[in-house]
Amino acid sequence: MKHYLQINDLDSLQQTVQEAIELKKEPTQFKKLGAGKTICLLFFNNSLRTRLSTQKAAINLGLDTIVMNFGSEGWQLEFEEGAVMDQGKAEHVKEAAQVVSQYADIVAIRAFAGLTDKEADEAELVLNAFKKYANIPVVNMESSVGHPLQALADAITLEENKTAQKPKVVLSWAPHPRALPHAVANSFVAMMKLQDADFVITHPEGYELNPEVTKGCKIVHDQEEALKNANFVYVKNWSNYQDYGQVKNTDSNWMMTKEKLGKAKFMHCLPVRRNVVVEDAVMDSDQSLCMEQANNRTFAAQVVLKQLLKDL
Amino acid sequence: MKHYLQINDLDSLQQTVQEAIELKKEPTQFKKLGAGKTICLLFFNNSLRTRLSTQKAAINLGLDTIVMNFGSEGWQLEFEEGAVMDQGKAEHVKEAAQVVSQYADIVAIRAFAGLTDKEADEAELVLNAFKKYANIPVVNMESSVGHPLQALADAITLEENKTAQKPKVVLSWAPHPRALPHAVANSFVAMMKLQDADFVITHPEGYELNPEVTKGCKIVHDQEEALKNANFVYVKNWSNYQDYGQVKNTDSNWMMTKEKLGKAKFMHCLPVRRNVVVEDAVMDSDQSLCMEQANNRTFAAQVVLKQLLKDL
Amino acid sequence: MKHYLQINDLDSLQQTVQEAIELKKEPTQFKKLGAGKTICLLFFNNSLRTRLSTQKAAINLGLDTIVMNFGSEGWQLEFEEGAVMDQGKAEHVKEAAQVVSQYADIVAIRAFAGLTDKEADEAELVLNAFKKYANIPVVNMESSVGHPLQALADAITLEENKTAQKPKVVLSWAPHPRALPHAVANSFVAMMKLQDADFVITHPEGYELNPEVTKGCKIVHDQEEALKNANFVYVKNWSNYQDYGQVKNTDSNWMMTKEKLGKAKFMHCLPVRRNVVVEDAVMDSDQSLCMEQANNRTFAAQVVLKQLLKDL
Repeated sequence: MKHYLQINDLDSLQQTVQEAIELKKEPTQFKKLGAGKTICLLFFNNSLRTRLSTQKAAINLGLDTIVMNFGSEGWQLEFEEGAVMDQGKAEHVKEAAQVVSQYADIVAIRAFAGLTDKEADEAELVLNAFKKYANIPVVNMESSVGHPLQALADAITLEENKTAQKPKVVLSWAPHPRALPHAVANSFVAMMKLQDADFVITHPEGYELNPEVTKGCKIVHDQEEALKNANFVYVKNWSNYQDYGQVKNTDSNWMMTKEKLGKAKFMHCLPVRRNVVVEDAVMDSDQSLCMEQANNRTFAAQVVLKQLLKDL
Repeated sequence: MKHYLQINDLDSLQQTVQEAIELKKEPTQFKKLGAGKTICLLFFNNSLRTRLSTQKAAINLGLDTIVMNFGSEGWQLEFEEGAVMDQGKAEHVKEAAQVVSQYADIVAIRAFAGLTDKEADEAELVLNAFKKYANIPVVNMESSVGHPLQALADAITLEENKTAQKPKVVLSWAPHPRALPHAVANSFVAMMKLQDADFVITHPEGYELNPEVTKGCKIVHDQEEALKNANFVYVKNWSNYQDYGQVKNTDSNWMMTKEKLGKAKFMHCLPVRRNVVVEDAVMDSDQSLCMEQANNRTFAAQVVLKQLLKDL
Repeated sequence: MKHYLQINDLDSLQQTVQEAIELKKEPTQFKKLGAGKTICLLFFNNSLRTRLSTQKAAINLGLDTIVMNFGSEGWQLEFEEGAVMDQGKAEHVKEAAQVVSQYADIVAIRAFAGLTDKEADEAELVLNAFKKYANIPVVNMESSVGHPLQALADAITLEENKTAQKPKVVLSWAPHPRALPHAVANSFVAMMKLQDADFVITHPEGYELNPEVTKGCKIVHDQEEALKNANFVYVKNWSNYQDYGQVKNTDSNWMMTKEKLGKAKFMHCLPVRRNVVVEDAVMDSDQSLCMEQANNRTFAAQVVLKQLLKDL
């Protein structure tokens, strides 16, 4: 693997999941693999789980880590080819990306969708510029349209908790007061397409994800029907895709409740708004896998870094 | 020791002080104790000494360290049980605390008093939530009502500098232009209660600390009388406790001067406002122990982390 | 060497450049030199290259590193002797500098010129206060009037790329929309004075650098004439020195173009404003040494830290 920009960059999801589960048994068993190598974590946006778990994964692999909040600590970047840089942007990403790659062996980047310009978001300006101009592997720590480390942690969690060979997994939209990106949902869908599962997406009409992402997926607008006999329910808000970045629906009937959940396991990437996205009774029950998902973030990051280090 | 939230969490102050003095002779003698373990330092507020000395202590013990400015780098936290999180707060501390504890072996937290809501401050929301929901030891790097790492550094400094078996120690209030928390004063008082000393608190009338904290302590409102024959004078401002968080007095007559100090040693936790809290002549004299106090912050943190690591 | 505040603090530029080139061949060969020692990097201003390359250099030398953004994470500092600190500044640099030096073995500092008060900038308040009150070596990571780590990286790059014994090197002013400090230009000039080169400075009339800095240097106001037969062209904007900190000229005729550059190598410290300071055709050509300069920042920092560590 050369970069980890999306879940499909993995040679094999199933093998990677197994490798992560092995790593988890003894997290420091590959401590020598990263010795003498440096990873640089660049944050263009806030982060809790990604920030800590990726650092922890790097520590477990013996990597030296440099963390930088690019927005507040660095320079504002220009992405346009041929720009006359006489405004606020002090550095072109061409230079920034190449320079960073001189000081590190791997670079991991978090850069959220702006949610105002669909085309710009889908162009993945930051990630693709680093892929193009940096000379080292690039890891996606959540970009405009994907969050493949989360999806990998979700896959590990599903594998560890499934009781049927082919479980029913439902991705259920939830209301939220603010406009959120599509990254987590997109990557979850992409990951589910690689799974042997009965996968259903449910959301209000008009809340379709990018049709290219959900191509071939079963979509049901009746949440109750979608949830029937589910083994796992993954709840997530996303803002409108067609009316890009708009909050068109905050219908609290779409909140996940213990009653709706039935006997299914509950999943969410966190942070989660209690009693808006999901009620306390679900979060505080044994059916919630959120903490396992968060814990698996370390091993998702670690298995990805391990694969990248092996191919360096 | 399970957590270090207040000075009274120590099994024995005297033994811990001796242990710190031993550590100081060869700071890296327990470098293997922390190997393979990680401490996460979470800052909800600014810090200089605490930030650097706690990192240094962790380095001396061989711990890996992850530092996070929670306010600017993470998500705004909800603390209320049962809250409908449809406003600005993105994550409940229940999840945040538990998640952090999955990536680290010890968590240290700085979260100042807001000084507007006495009840909320005294509930120690941040610290207690982490104590409740994190599954790992919690260290107080200054909370709403206490700063026990400072108090321990002060105890080490007193021990190293005392010439009498039972020294006279005076805690003397000082003026300050801004409203400051009671944390340092509270923990100093709590620590002095564990000492064999003639301890006196002096402050303007109406500037009483929390009476539960000072219960049993000698309080004298005449500063001159209080300072008579003092061996150590600990100077510190705090805002009004009764009219909570108000600055009711900025009387510069309460500033510490060389003349008032006499032959006593001067102590302050720093940062200190020169010529407001204390005059230059004191700060720049050999009587000031401020630098020794600051230096002992490393060994206070280190002895606490050492005790926590031993009980992990 | 006791401190590295300016390029002239080096015992020998030539020997240091050779030492850096040796280090570069096997960057971790002195990994044991820094073991058990800590460097503290204090940033009063933003940074990309300096932040990452200095950390990388420290890693290569086996140093533990503590990074602090002083402005946003610490306290506002007072620099005036005898000040009555009843305004916004919470700590005097006397205490701050001395305290930091208790937790680290080397301190590196970035503190830009304010560009409003020439006298204050030239007094190098931050750097000189740390030099005076800290008890450990101080490294300049760009101060008000100098950027000697950049100048050393430039010297390494010149040495690696020169084809003539005595090359012609031109420092050419460039337009820029914002007011920039003189630090990079000053240190480049100081470094060139230690070189066996035909050195020429060119800038619009009225854009003289500090005459003490350029004393003895050839200054030509006709850019075309200055550039004739140049082997290296170092392009850099600086704001007006006489009308201190003003932007009096943004004449795009001073921008560096491929045509003007001829066969010379192009140098810039980065970040650079494309198509304002220099056109794309130069940046994207093989004649640009910018990436080599940036890469050499690691080895400049490393050789300086190595020399300081040896003399600890």
